[in-house]
Amino acid sequence: MTRIDGRSADELRPVRMTRGWLDHAEGSVLIEFGNTRVLCAVSVTEGVPRWRKGSGQGWVTAEYAMLPRSTNTRSDREAVKGRLGGRTHEISRLIGRSLRGIVDMSALGENTMVVDCDVLQADGGTRTAAITGAYVALQDAVGWLRQRGLLKGDTVLTDSVAAISVGVVDGVPLLDLKYEEDVRAETDMNVVMTGSGKFIEVQGTAEGAPFARDELDELLLLAELGCTRLTVLQDEALAS
Amino acid sequence: MTRIDGRSADELRPVRMTRGWLDHAEGSVLIEFGNTRVLCAVSVTEGVPRWRKGSGQGWVTAEYAMLPRSTNTRSDREAVKGRLGGRTHEISRLIGRSLRGIVDMSALGENTMVVDCDVLQADGGTRTAAITGAYVALQDAVGWLRQRGLLKGDTVLTDSVAAISVGVVDGVPLLDLKYEEDVRAETDMNVVMTGSGKFIEVQGTAEGAPFARDELDELLLLAELGCTRLTVLQDEALAS
Amino acid sequence: MTRIDGRSADELRPVRMTRGWLDHAEGSVLIEFGNTRVLCAVSVTEGVPRWRKGSGQGWVTAEYAMLPRSTNTRSDREAVKGRLGGRTHEISRLIGRSLRGIVDMSALGENTMVVDCDVLQADGGTRTAAITGAYVALQDAVGWLRQRGLLKGDTVLTDSVAAISVGVVDGVPLLDLKYEEDVRAETDMNVVMTGSGKFIEVQGTAEGAPFARDELDELLLLAELGCTRLTVLQDEALAS
Amino acid sequence: MTRIDGRSADELRPVRMTRGWLDHAEGSVLIEFGNTRVLCAVSVTEGVPRWRKGSGQGWVTAEYAMLPRSTNTRSDREAVKGRLGGRTHEISRLIGRSLRGIVDMSALGENTMVVDCDVLQADGGTRTAAITGAYVALQDAVGWLRQRGLLKGDTVLTDSVAAISVGVVDGVPLLDLKYEEDVRAETDMNVVMTGSGKFIEVQGTAEGAPFARDELDELLLLAELGCTRLTVLQDEALAS
Amino acid sequence: MTRIDGRSADELRPVRMTRGWLDHAEGSVLIEFGNTRVLCAVSVTEGVPRWRKGSGQGWVTAEYAMLPRSTNTRSDREAVKGRLGGRTHEISRLIGRSLRGIVDMSALGENTMVVDCDVLQADGGTRTAAITGAYVALQDAVGWLRQRGLLKGDTVLTDSVAAISVGVVDGVPLLDLKYEEDVRAETDMNVVMTGSGKFIEVQGTAEGAPFARDELDELLLLAELGCTRLTVLQDEALAS
Amino acid sequence: MTRIDGRSADELRPVRMTRGWLDHAEGSVLIEFGNTRVLCAVSVTEGVPRWRKGSGQGWVTAEYAMLPRSTNTRSDREAVKGRLGGRTHEISRLIGRSLRGIVDMSALGENTMVVDCDVLQADGGTRTAAITGAYVALQDAVGWLRQRGLLKGDTVLTDSVAAISVGVVDGVPLLDLKYEEDVRAETDMNVVMTGSGKFIEVQGTAEGAPFARDELDELLLLAELGCTRLTVLQDEALAS
Repeated sequence: MTRIDGRSADELRPVRMTRGWLDHAEGSVLIEFGNTRVLCAVSVTEGVPRWRKGSGQGWVTAEYAMLPRSTNTRSDREAVKGRLGGRTHEISRLIGRSLRGIVDMSALGENTMVVDCDVLQADGGTRTAAITGAYVALQDAVGWLRQRGLLKGDTVLTDSVAAISVGVVDGVPLLDLKYEEDVRAETDMNVVMTGSGKFIEVQGTAEGAPFARDELDELLLLAELGCTRLTVLQDEALAS
Repeated sequence: MTRIDGRSADELRPVRMTRGWLDHAEGSVLIEFGNTRVLCAVSVTEGVPRWRKGSGQGWVTAEYAMLPRSTNTRSDREAVKGRLGGRTHEISRLIGRSLRGIVDMSALGENTMVVDCDVLQADGGTRTAAITGAYVALQDAVGWLRQRGLLKGDTVLTDSVAAISVGVVDGVPLLDLKYEEDVRAETDMNVVMTGSGKFIEVQGTAEGAPFARDELDELLLLAELGCTRLTVLQDEALAS
Repeated sequence: MTRIDGRSADELRPVRMTRGWLDHAEGSVLIEFGNTRVLCAVSVTEGVPRWRKGSGQGWVTAEYAMLPRSTNTRSDREAVKGRLGGRTHEISRLIGRSLRGIVDMSALGENTMVVDCDVLQADGGTRTAAITGAYVALQDAVGWLRQRGLLKGDTVLTDSVAAISVGVVDGVPLLDLKYEEDVRAETDMNVVMTGSGKFIEVQGTAEGAPFARDELDELLLLAELGCTRLTVLQDEALAS
Repeated sequence: MTRIDGRSADELRPVRMTRGWLDHAEGSVLIEFGNTRVLCAVSVTEGVPRWRKGSGQGWVTAEYAMLPRSTNTRSDREAVKGRLGGRTHEISRLIGRSLRGIVDMSALGENTMVVDCDVLQADGGTRTAAITGAYVALQDAVGWLRQRGLLKGDTVLTDSVAAISVGVVDGVPLLDLKYEEDVRAETDMNVVMTGSGKFIEVQGTAEGAPFARDELDELLLLAELGCTRLTVLQDEALAS
Repeated sequence: MTRIDGRSADELRPVRMTRGWLDHAEGSVLIEFGNTRVLCAVSVTEGVPRWRKGSGQGWVTAEYAMLPRSTNTRSDREAVKGRLGGRTHEISRLIGRSLRGIVDMSALGENTMVVDCDVLQADGGTRTAAITGAYVALQDAVGWLRQRGLLKGDTVLTDSVAAISVGVVDGVPLLDLKYEEDVRAETDMNVVMTGSGKFIEVQGTAEGAPFARDELDELLLLAELGCTRLTVLQDEALAS
Repeated sequence: MTRIDGRSADELRPVRMTRGWLDHAEGSVLIEFGNTRVLCAVSVTEGVPRWRKGSGQGWVTAEYAMLPRSTNTRSDREAVKGRLGGRTHEISRLIGRSLRGIVDMSALGENTMVVDCDVLQADGGTRTAAITGAYVALQDAVGWLRQRGLLKGDTVLTDSVAAISVGVVDGVPLLDLKYEEDVRAETDMNVVMTGSGKFIEVQGTAEGAPFARDELDELLLLAELGCTRLTVLQDEALAS
């Protein structure tokens, strides 16, 4: 079987990470998974939210949003509707949890990093691209803090983190679904992993028929492969 | 190791399901997982949302909420704050997806079932109790529709569905976490399964350190066990 | 004339109060007026709202809400609509005023009691059941404060408080209207009284034709009777 | 005892009604109870809300609001806060119910009258002034409809309606409380009556100590007196 | 050409300013430009918003709103809709900027003046009437502060400010457009000027065809004329 | 005098327009005025808003927003705050009016073009860049409509439109202010002009001292120069 864009089942789309895409942000990356394009910007502020003051611990949080015409047909702005949708909430929380999973809050000290992931163009996998790009932007923001002597410990980021989507389309497990694949997937899974090969988050959903344990195992394997490759690409981006 | 309430690692809390707890709802169940108490009410209306009209297909959706003093300390009402929180959105969507996973929308015909899951008391596992109880209430609502000859097909519910939480606490995988266990869990997973042993949703989150593949496998096994037992209890409740 | 449920005109529906229905709340009562079922939960916190700090006085406030399927047909959640309706506001304020009418704020000291009245099932008289049940839950919460030595005075509750609805249906004054009676009532009145027989609130509304002074007098008499009986039942519940 | 402004206990403040204060509204009255100044504007539209279409019946509704600096110290605008307060809701509903109490909806036919009562200056009794003025504006709006032949029946307004506040201050029952009296009142009652001497709404509240039945009776008598006088003044205003 | 109300092209409508229209406000003016009627109320509070504390500087801000039936057909209340419209925001900001343009914030000292401009009746030019009236109310509020010795400098208001609308209707530049002219104007301009003849704000918009530089010049000239006359009228009002 | 970035007073920053930056939108341009970067996307839908149906006329509207970290320090998302700010409203309306000024709605036919202008990076002049870029994107969207034979007339865009900011900094009139200049400007003006040299919108504001007529004239001249140059650049972009 050939996929719609000619990829093999276990192939990622071309990944591109442009560091420093913004002039103001302490860390920023424009990440592309094929046509999916997400702008990740890290804003550093000294101090932490009130409920964390005096703890000696830092804080990392994330917000995800899509531009109205990032998608095939225009969506109304959530700011105009006056409320965030459930999907936006859900993905923002996922990104935040994923990043916090590799941050040593004591080493960060009482500093806050807010990570904005804005989808400029969507073609499937926006949340996984966001997490993958956000990690690289986070590294730059941590570098910024280090240069100014604002950190409390040496190793703020204890590992790397990347994420990928996998799914079963027409009975075949595929890596890194693009939009047309995503809408047809019977099972859809997003997996967040560390560079050392452990899981931070596994979210599998039967979109059509429920899935059996062995399908789950296949998908997890595929996701492990994808995250491993993304880890290499992140390292290259950070080395450049 | 003994658990805080004396259970063994693979033991469910006492489960109780009271059908017909409400007089008005077409199906209703008060489900208890130990001290967790969730009221599941199904409201049936003829017709479907506008975007589904003329499709011949029904619709099932769910809303989850917690009473302000269901928890240890009082939480502000979301109606007073004027917006739903991210967690509420997330869980409502999870319940809806889980139930839709076993509904044959053509057999349902152009009818809508809205499932309200209101947590009267919370002690961990509210979302899994909600899904487990909602299935039983759904059966009663389907029976109500059948009696009135409003269904288009014989088998609206193609399977049963139940859900359970599992997690790793102090390195030990535990089934059906109660609140004190939940807050201390390093890894936390909610699993939604059909009566026939397939997965509808798997959501695993590293709360502390990332988890390895074999931990994931252990947790999945434990969850399969728990869901199987819940299926038996659902059948008993429906038989009574 | 016999009423729809066989009661005589001056007869209350069966009243049931279950104290301690919740494990966490400092005071809680599940009160039933026939099929009307309201969960009253009192949450105690040390300290008072900012505008009252340093006054030496406590504060009592109430919030009322209905579960979406407490009623015959499902109502949308106010949290989903993003705003409280006028009726909710009105009843919350009524409950709060009624309870504050018997609280000695100096004796309470700088503590706050928030009373949540959530209607689990509605069959007329939800606001009066809420007030009547809330008083009993308040007693338990005051007991909780007393045990911990957190009170400033001996008598926080200077009297008891109960409430009942009365109305004119088909020209006949009736006590404790159930839903079907309530919607047909020409005149509808809610009366809040102390155990010592004084009025805290009188709210009479002509739903159909305006009412004359002698009708008003008859209704007040009936309400006095009803509140007196409720006072006895409250005492029994507190004695048990 | 002399009152703060020299009135006797059973004396109204000077009442002034200026009809046609607005050029656009189908009926409008600027009503003054002493320093309280409320602008009542009736907007007529053909047709009724969707839920009433085809019923042959009209609809009347009211909205009440205060200008931010109508009061002693400025209040924030509800439009800026993004939500209506409970008091606003409560009073809007009261005005609407009071006016509907004298409207024959069949005679009105499928027309809608929206009554806006905006408090330009507040000195106690704003809701009662609003109701009293709104009746006169309603008469003008009904005249406007009659002239255009848009009514279905001869007598749209079956009676007149007026409202007054009464209260107990320092143990003395007083008519038509001004602000300084209102804040000191032990008991506060708003009474809405028809020109023929019947009650549409009675709302009595113990602000301090609960009140006895005979106090209630005294207040009702005083209110009847006040409403009777307002009825005369309304007739004069309509005659001029 | 004669205008709809018989004015010549460069003629203002009758202007009336009633100082002290409100009893509570520190400064208040009911200003009328023909049938346009705006109530301007200045509320003074000691202290400034948090972000300005300790600066030694005062603050002036404005809020503009229209009563629902100030216009030809009723508009929904923004408080009911739960959000301010763009036009309301825009005009509130314009009024605030215009007034701040003549205030010496150091002379004001750490005091805040909130200027509420509520349109009671609208017939074109509401924002310009609001600015013109607000200046006079501001003078009275400054006088109030001066009497109490609360100012830091002698000259809080360094100049006067007035505003007028001009526009091209059927090819003819007109001063002070009334509603029927405003909706037909090809070009519409609002100009805010100081008493000394300088500009604070110029806002010109092509409603129909774009306008040429010489039309712009003509309109500016006409606006200068109008503002000069308003300045005289303001002085007269303040002298009386 | 040399400007902060070495430009002369009447010099634009480097302008770059990248057409087709998005794959989905019917027209899209990434426009850069120096470091200011705005993504303009035009979404075409057949049909018009309800209030315009059957008119034979099309509709064009615009929405402007800033990414949270487009600015020097992060701003909260308006979607999170739940309401649009006044500035956002104001600029969205300005862009919409400016574009409608050159659209022949009859030639467009009953089609709608929504123009989203999202500021990815802000360094002064975001609204003028948005208008200038939106025109080019609009041309592409009109081309898309023409190709599909969906237009009613030959010339939908009757002229071109561009916008520029001008201001007085330290007494010197400057063209195309960058952020550091903008915050220091005594007078700030945004001018929207057609390619044929006429004005669509002129908005001048005294940020510090009021400005005299001759300063206004100087600024207008400078703006005419800037818009003329932008017109040339737009033509080049469209020719490529």
